[in-house]
Amino acid sequence: MKQRTVFFVSDQTGITAQTLGRSLLTQFDGMKFRHVTVPFISTPDKAHDAVRRINLVAEVEGVRPLVFSTFVHNEVREIVRGCNGLLLDFFDAFIGPLERELERASSHTSGRAHGLADDAAYARRIEAVNFTLANDDGIGVQNYGRADLILVGVSRSGKTPTCLYLALQYGVYAANFPLTDEHFEGAGGELPSVLRPHLRKLVGLTIDAKRLEQIRVNRRPDSRYASASQISFELREAEALFKRNAIPYLDTTHASIEEIAMRVLDSTGLRDRVEAQP
Amino acid sequence: MKQRTVFFVSDQTGITAQTLGRSLLTQFDGMKFRHVTVPFISTPDKAHDAVRRINLVAEVEGVRPLVFSTFVHNEVREIVRGCNGLLLDFFDAFIGPLERELERASSHTSGRAHGLADDAAYARRIEAVNFTLANDDGIGVQNYGRADLILVGVSRSGKTPTCLYLALQYGVYAANFPLTDEHFEGAGGELPSVLRPHLRKLVGLTIDAKRLEQIRVNRRPDSRYASASQISFELREAEALFKRNAIPYLDTTHASIEEIAMRVLDSTGLRDRVEAQP
Repeated sequence: MKQRTVFFVSDQTGITAQTLGRSLLTQFDGMKFRHVTVPFISTPDKAHDAVRRINLVAEVEGVRPLVFSTFVHNEVREIVRGCNGLLLDFFDAFIGPLERELERASSHTSGRAHGLADDAAYARRIEAVNFTLANDDGIGVQNYGRADLILVGVSRSGKTPTCLYLALQYGVYAANFPLTDEHFEGAGGELPSVLRPHLRKLVGLTIDAKRLEQIRVNRRPDSRYASASQISFELREAEALFKRNAIPYLDTTHASIEEIAMRVLDSTGLRDRVEAQP
Repeated sequence: MKQRTVFFVSDQTGITAQTLGRSLLTQFDGMKFRHVTVPFISTPDKAHDAVRRINLVAEVEGVRPLVFSTFVHNEVREIVRGCNGLLLDFFDAFIGPLERELERASSHTSGRAHGLADDAAYARRIEAVNFTLANDDGIGVQNYGRADLILVGVSRSGKTPTCLYLALQYGVYAANFPLTDEHFEGAGGELPSVLRPHLRKLVGLTIDAKRLEQIRVNRRPDSRYASASQISFELREAEALFKRNAIPYLDTTHASIEEIAMRVLDSTGLRDRVEAQP
């Protein structure tokens, strides 16, 4: 099977073109795509360079590349449109209908989507990352009053990457707290006392025992930590604790970081608050 | 001015619809948009619920909402198309041209774009986050051999969020090292010895002095750390060090995390390697 080269080109970072293009390509099973990103095409010269790169690939591979683009500026878009590739420009497709619906012209300003459009929102994301780093893995419990949410779960259930994603992308103050033997054995199944005042901020994560075993074996082979019996004990106890305390929880086994993050936002009242921010 | 409500709806996480919609809306200056995300619309029932929500908003606000969608499944998309909003469906617009170009039908499978499509790539992202956390702010210098890149710069120049973004999104093993007085004063301008063997992995970050002062004052008011004279000294010394050692560096003042990350990938040979991964 022939490999297709896919270009993501933009007068901005190219992140939107990447996100959209990749999303579409997942719908074509079994095909192989080679990705090339060409960002910051801000001048006609750079646009002509991009066209030459695309055309060279078309010639060498004998099949025209797919070109996903998000050009805000018509001039560079029209130059790139002359390439020997299938150009799918996301702005071009939707700006027209939006202009008609909103009854105003778009500003054709680049660098806004992932640029520093809003200082306050940007500062909040940075502060959220700092908060998350300072409140990872059960440290910083004295700060839980300022947390938007606290993820709880056993080691390697996905807490840290999810917290960081929520902080970076959405400015959510996300802390996380690991459940370990001390919270299970003989503790009568009580929620750790540091968590009790924050019960409504808690979201539990769980994971399939087999999958967790793979992850832990990879990390510390031949340890009690990575043994099947210890893992199934921890997961059973953690889920029982979630249920007894009516803590919403979700299974991270077949989910990506993005999906876990979206489901966490969904299971709390946070989505609306996050979206209401500037 | 009337506020418009914008829905991001999907049978998946809605992240792609958000990315597209937000990116487009930045082109309409001065308008106010209220965001509502409705993800995981996987059944006709949920689709009818979404239509009712959209129609209620249309009625209450007296203007039809904008609806950005990424429906993989035609059945739910067609239900939502019946809503009283301007539906801009991104799969609908582009899947057709792609099917014709690739000469095959798309799989209409949801949950792939941000789902766990590829275990290896997913595991790499998690490992990269762990690496970055273990090598933040000058700790873990003994691991620099395994780093893909090492960001260097003064405190609060943007190193940590950029590293985390690179790890989470691209699976890049990104470490960072803070430049402080001990690397400047009387050290003859030599690169810290722990960095020297890794010179080709270094990327410098700098930032406008006024902006850095705001950030540091906010963090530690009335400190030497936040004083204008200390800040201009640090920045001058850091930039001189970058120049003397031919370390590429970039100014983070007016850039978002995403943009800094893309420019860092651009200034190294990493983009191609990242894109070549599964």
